[in-house]
Amino acid sequence: MTDKLFQIGVVGASGYTGIELIRILLAHPAVEIKAISSRQFMSKSLCNVYPYLTQSDKLCFVSPDPSNFDGCDVVFFATPHGVAMQYANSMLDQGSKVIDLSADFRIKNIAIWQDYYKMPHVASDLVKESVYGLPELFRNEIAGARLIANPGCYPTAVLLGLLPLLRTGVSCKKIIVDACSGVSGAGKTLRDDLLFCEANEDFRSYALPNRHRHYPEIQQMILAVTAWKEVNLTFIPHLLPLNCGMHATIHAATEEEIDLPNHYKTFYQNEPFIHVLDKGKLPAVKMVRSSNNCFLAVHPGGTSKEWVMLSVIDNLQKGAAAQAVQNMNILLRLPETQGLNPRTSSW
Amino acid sequence: MTDKLFQIGVVGASGYTGIELIRILLAHPAVEIKAISSRQFMSKSLCNVYPYLTQSDKLCFVSPDPSNFDGCDVVFFATPHGVAMQYANSMLDQGSKVIDLSADFRIKNIAIWQDYYKMPHVASDLVKESVYGLPELFRNEIAGARLIANPGCYPTAVLLGLLPLLRTGVSCKKIIVDACSGVSGAGKTLRDDLLFCEANEDFRSYALPNRHRHYPEIQQMILAVTAWKEVNLTFIPHLLPLNCGMHATIHAATEEEIDLPNHYKTFYQNEPFIHVLDKGKLPAVKMVRSSNNCFLAVHPGGTSKEWVMLSVIDNLQKGAAAQAVQNMNILLRLPETQGLNPRTSSW
Amino acid sequence: MTDKLFQIGVVGASGYTGIELIRILLAHPAVEIKAISSRQFMSKSLCNVYPYLTQSDKLCFVSPDPSNFDGCDVVFFATPHGVAMQYANSMLDQGSKVIDLSADFRIKNIAIWQDYYKMPHVASDLVKESVYGLPELFRNEIAGARLIANPGCYPTAVLLGLLPLLRTGVSCKKIIVDACSGVSGAGKTLRDDLLFCEANEDFRSYALPNRHRHYPEIQQMILAVTAWKEVNLTFIPHLLPLNCGMHATIHAATEEEIDLPNHYKTFYQNEPFIHVLDKGKLPAVKMVRSSNNCFLAVHPGGTSKEWVMLSVIDNLQKGAAAQAVQNMNILLRLPETQGLNPRTSSW
Amino acid sequence: MTDKLFQIGVVGASGYTGIELIRILLAHPAVEIKAISSRQFMSKSLCNVYPYLTQSDKLCFVSPDPSNFDGCDVVFFATPHGVAMQYANSMLDQGSKVIDLSADFRIKNIAIWQDYYKMPHVASDLVKESVYGLPELFRNEIAGARLIANPGCYPTAVLLGLLPLLRTGVSCKKIIVDACSGVSGAGKTLRDDLLFCEANEDFRSYALPNRHRHYPEIQQMILAVTAWKEVNLTFIPHLLPLNCGMHATIHAATEEEIDLPNHYKTFYQNEPFIHVLDKGKLPAVKMVRSSNNCFLAVHPGGTSKEWVMLSVIDNLQKGAAAQAVQNMNILLRLPETQGLNPRTSSW
Repeated sequence: MTDKLFQIGVVGASGYTGIELIRILLAHPAVEIKAISSRQFMSKSLCNVYPYLTQSDKLCFVSPDPSNFDGCDVVFFATPHGVAMQYANSMLDQGSKVIDLSADFRIKNIAIWQDYYKMPHVASDLVKESVYGLPELFRNEIAGARLIANPGCYPTAVLLGLLPLLRTGVSCKKIIVDACSGVSGAGKTLRDDLLFCEANEDFRSYALPNRHRHYPEIQQMILAVTAWKEVNLTFIPHLLPLNCGMHATIHAATEEEIDLPNHYKTFYQNEPFIHVLDKGKLPAVKMVRSSNNCFLAVHPGGTSKEWVMLSVIDNLQKGAAAQAVQNMNILLRLPETQGLNPRTSSW
Repeated sequence: MTDKLFQIGVVGASGYTGIELIRILLAHPAVEIKAISSRQFMSKSLCNVYPYLTQSDKLCFVSPDPSNFDGCDVVFFATPHGVAMQYANSMLDQGSKVIDLSADFRIKNIAIWQDYYKMPHVASDLVKESVYGLPELFRNEIAGARLIANPGCYPTAVLLGLLPLLRTGVSCKKIIVDACSGVSGAGKTLRDDLLFCEANEDFRSYALPNRHRHYPEIQQMILAVTAWKEVNLTFIPHLLPLNCGMHATIHAATEEEIDLPNHYKTFYQNEPFIHVLDKGKLPAVKMVRSSNNCFLAVHPGGTSKEWVMLSVIDNLQKGAAAQAVQNMNILLRLPETQGLNPRTSSW
Repeated sequence: MTDKLFQIGVVGASGYTGIELIRILLAHPAVEIKAISSRQFMSKSLCNVYPYLTQSDKLCFVSPDPSNFDGCDVVFFATPHGVAMQYANSMLDQGSKVIDLSADFRIKNIAIWQDYYKMPHVASDLVKESVYGLPELFRNEIAGARLIANPGCYPTAVLLGLLPLLRTGVSCKKIIVDACSGVSGAGKTLRDDLLFCEANEDFRSYALPNRHRHYPEIQQMILAVTAWKEVNLTFIPHLLPLNCGMHATIHAATEEEIDLPNHYKTFYQNEPFIHVLDKGKLPAVKMVRSSNNCFLAVHPGGTSKEWVMLSVIDNLQKGAAAQAVQNMNILLRLPETQGLNPRTSSW
Repeated sequence: MTDKLFQIGVVGASGYTGIELIRILLAHPAVEIKAISSRQFMSKSLCNVYPYLTQSDKLCFVSPDPSNFDGCDVVFFATPHGVAMQYANSMLDQGSKVIDLSADFRIKNIAIWQDYYKMPHVASDLVKESVYGLPELFRNEIAGARLIANPGCYPTAVLLGLLPLLRTGVSCKKIIVDACSGVSGAGKTLRDDLLFCEANEDFRSYALPNRHRHYPEIQQMILAVTAWKEVNLTFIPHLLPLNCGMHATIHAATEEEIDLPNHYKTFYQNEPFIHVLDKGKLPAVKMVRSSNNCFLAVHPGGTSKEWVMLSVIDNLQKGAAAQAVQNMNILLRLPETQGLNPRTSSW
């Protein structure tokens, strides 16, 4: 343990992602939470609202005013879309590094962002500066960044399942992704379809093909890491009746024959959180519950040029809060796995 | 209500499909259950084992010996695979019509059946005679048959989602199906992975691409209704943490451009149980819970020659017991919807 | 089927109770739904909002204005508390009978009602006139009434579990009820604690002892059917992570020794919906899913003067909508079980 | 971190309790797992069977032969009842301390044990020697013991809810406990009632009053810590449709008036894992998920001499594996909370 603890702020600390972030940070040996904000719980103590997170009454929710976060080494935004782009500049000016768990800095093309997120963007300069926080792809760039766009949950699951294939240089004629998310992926939002009696014992697709906000994010990143001119991608998200967990079934048709399973094993052999299963095995969301892990399987599809990749993460962990802490560890030159239990409870 | 009630037998009445069949038949105004068999509950009364199904102690479980089913107008088999092929001939010889809810008579190619079901087939002549019991496809053939092979749950959901497209005459280069089933689809089987603590809060694919037993059944029926020489199909089943419900996301790449949504509406306009949703709507398994209905949506995919069909059924109803009763109604010249509530409780 | 169908109205038809009521009434052979109201869905068609309930576009949601319900033989209120007391008089004046599924007419003592429901009561005269709609207790009174106060779900489960004991004349020193309800008991309400991620995988008591609104209702009815001066009752409700189902564990300490199990069997032997299990058996909410049934067990407690009764109902059926239809059948001199399937799907 | 790591053995490592124990021990900084046994998985590696627990292939399942556990500082038994009493003596003779998570050493009265567990006891001398491993009650005795009987899950939840009251010296006329457990409480057992489709969407009591095996354990401990001659206790367990979590609603009628809430706060003020909620608050199983915590509330009941205590634990943690590690920490003079995360994920 270091003598000096890094000072951390969390803006928007009362949603599912924010709570999970606080839980991880409270147990992290190298950091100290300095400030947390929540409009809903302003001036209440954390132990009053979430008695199971802490017994201490030292930490109280404040407003998101930047002055409350002055002196933080890192400020996380776990806010709805549209908030971080208003406050990030002030936080950066105060010398904090910023990790945004919302979508404000993920899409480089502002017009596309505005089309999918239905609001004007007010910080396009920061979009240019920001680094996409997928450590398995941009570890070095993250280490040198001021502003991290923490990836969406679907893009994390899908890109981890595609990266080794994309890096082979082989082109894909078509990529089809049927992905499923636990209900916490929608956040703590008062909407009819998120009520227990609606989601329980139900299953459905909840966005028309390629109209989900994570579609342009996946598309952008595929083009960013390949020499392809365009990508023929179909992406469909489905809602699972469980709290946490994300599963992507990825179908890829390649232009040439290629042997993928060994390539995947080799590609990820030094990654602490990515695990490629042996031949014949299939991943389950239970394998990654409450952890920062991703489990992958790669299987031949219907023909010799088709592959099926299956990828599982916990949407609140590797898909949000834990990946954000992984990025924080990189930014602060801490061991990348610190505070991120590599072992999973399956409950 | 008719004066004379048709006499019905159910072999293998203690599994999930058998219980559901009994529940529907007990409320059916034109039939009377004459005999039910179960090795597990032999000589116990139905009301003792399932007090919520009936308060009457008239009906007792017997052995599957054909003599116990003599005089039945229709005998259902809700048995594990391999049982119906042993007993069906005797039942037919006694003059009963037979509806088999297991897979014994679904696959015309005996070698393929034996590869996927891992046992020798002992009644290949009956396989030739049997009619595939999908009323939306073979209503006339069913009416004239002695032996019905009731379709599997996945094939029902997938074929209902594909039929209008297949009937256009347009070829498909590729069909990809990611399908999900509630746990009751696996039957009442004492297996680790079906325990509550294993399936609850979990989601996973549970068969390698095209190795699930319903793959050759889907493949056979696609070829049966098209002029195609072969079908390039990828089928992957997943296990949903809910009791009943099945959802298929079907991706089809056609050789030509075609306008499907109106075609689907027209194709199914006279079908009492098949409902095509309006543009922009998405089906949910909750829409079909406890009913014989199928809800469909058809949406453009990533390109102008790609389509996504979404299909939902209740795996125990349209996917098994209720479809079997629909077939019984056709066999017995009863109104096809009799005893099959068209309205659904969403709970 | 009768030539003339009774005309029915449903005020507040878009909540869980209202939807369930419509589902039952649509399948009821002796009635026709004339009008349904919903502020949320006003002027939308039923088939548009709930495509799985009907394919017909004849029925549209209207405002709760009484003129929309003129000519109805029976008007149901499935509204939040405080609505029926405003409109019931007009409906009654128009000649309709009224069945209120809310709590507006259940508590005879207006002061107590106002204490527990936190609003002024505006129709105390109707409270006096109303009959408490528990058919097993007040069948004759219901038949002659204009206005039925349909019981709460907990009171139904608890009173059915206590009635035979209360009718023995033996006094109880103490009655303790730990009762549990599925989440639909709270209605379709946008509240944090009813979100899927909150209720799923959780269990908790949600009211301090005797502070739940159903406590005074249970207390009133116990005193109404006994010669007791007061009742020493403790009632604690708990929230179950399931959609529908209610379980009450009832502990009673009697002043004298008494043999209850046979008494319970005899007491309910002619009741079509109440089933007393044999010695050694325990009821499960799955036994009553989607049905109007109540299953009961009676077991000796810790001493010879202590008894434990276990009672299960479906909170939306016998606890709300189906019991309301049972009351309607009585009001309209229809067979009491008509339209109320006595057999249950356990899914 | 110490230089020397304590060596630990786990007998019966493949059930839910055993897996959870391994998960905690793998992350515990002061111990090293030396041997794990499982008949089901003998000679397989841990990472092969549970890839999400470890990526290392160093640890393999062996037989429960004591020689495999020679040199262990502590041996845990996470076996079915009846196993530990056969092997414990050998382990103790080899110099290991033993913590038994089964019921073999919990009940001092051998006749009662044999009545409830339906088998002859073969190690009654060890029963006499064993210490009941509830640290909040017997911390000093545990520190000096060789053999710990780790408490049952229900007794842990109930006794923690009763201890402060029992210690007041005030007698109770009657104690009634309605307790509920998640399905993992039944272990990883292939039984019909533990199948997903059976337990999901269901709730039931599963033992007649006072016939559950934890009844005599609770009764014994109440008498052990009071001067009472007997205890009038009614205990009823119920099965919750969730993986992990236990909730006890405890009704106590005292002989005298007494002020309990402050007494509870004071009683537990130095206990790291026991948290008494403020007035008006109610505990939820979600508060303790995956942690060794117990949350309690104390509320006035129906009269001035009646109290309701609500107690929640995670049945696999404070109710089994984590409490066993707490006992291990005490035995080995480690910090009592080491390796036991005090903060909880609510998922």
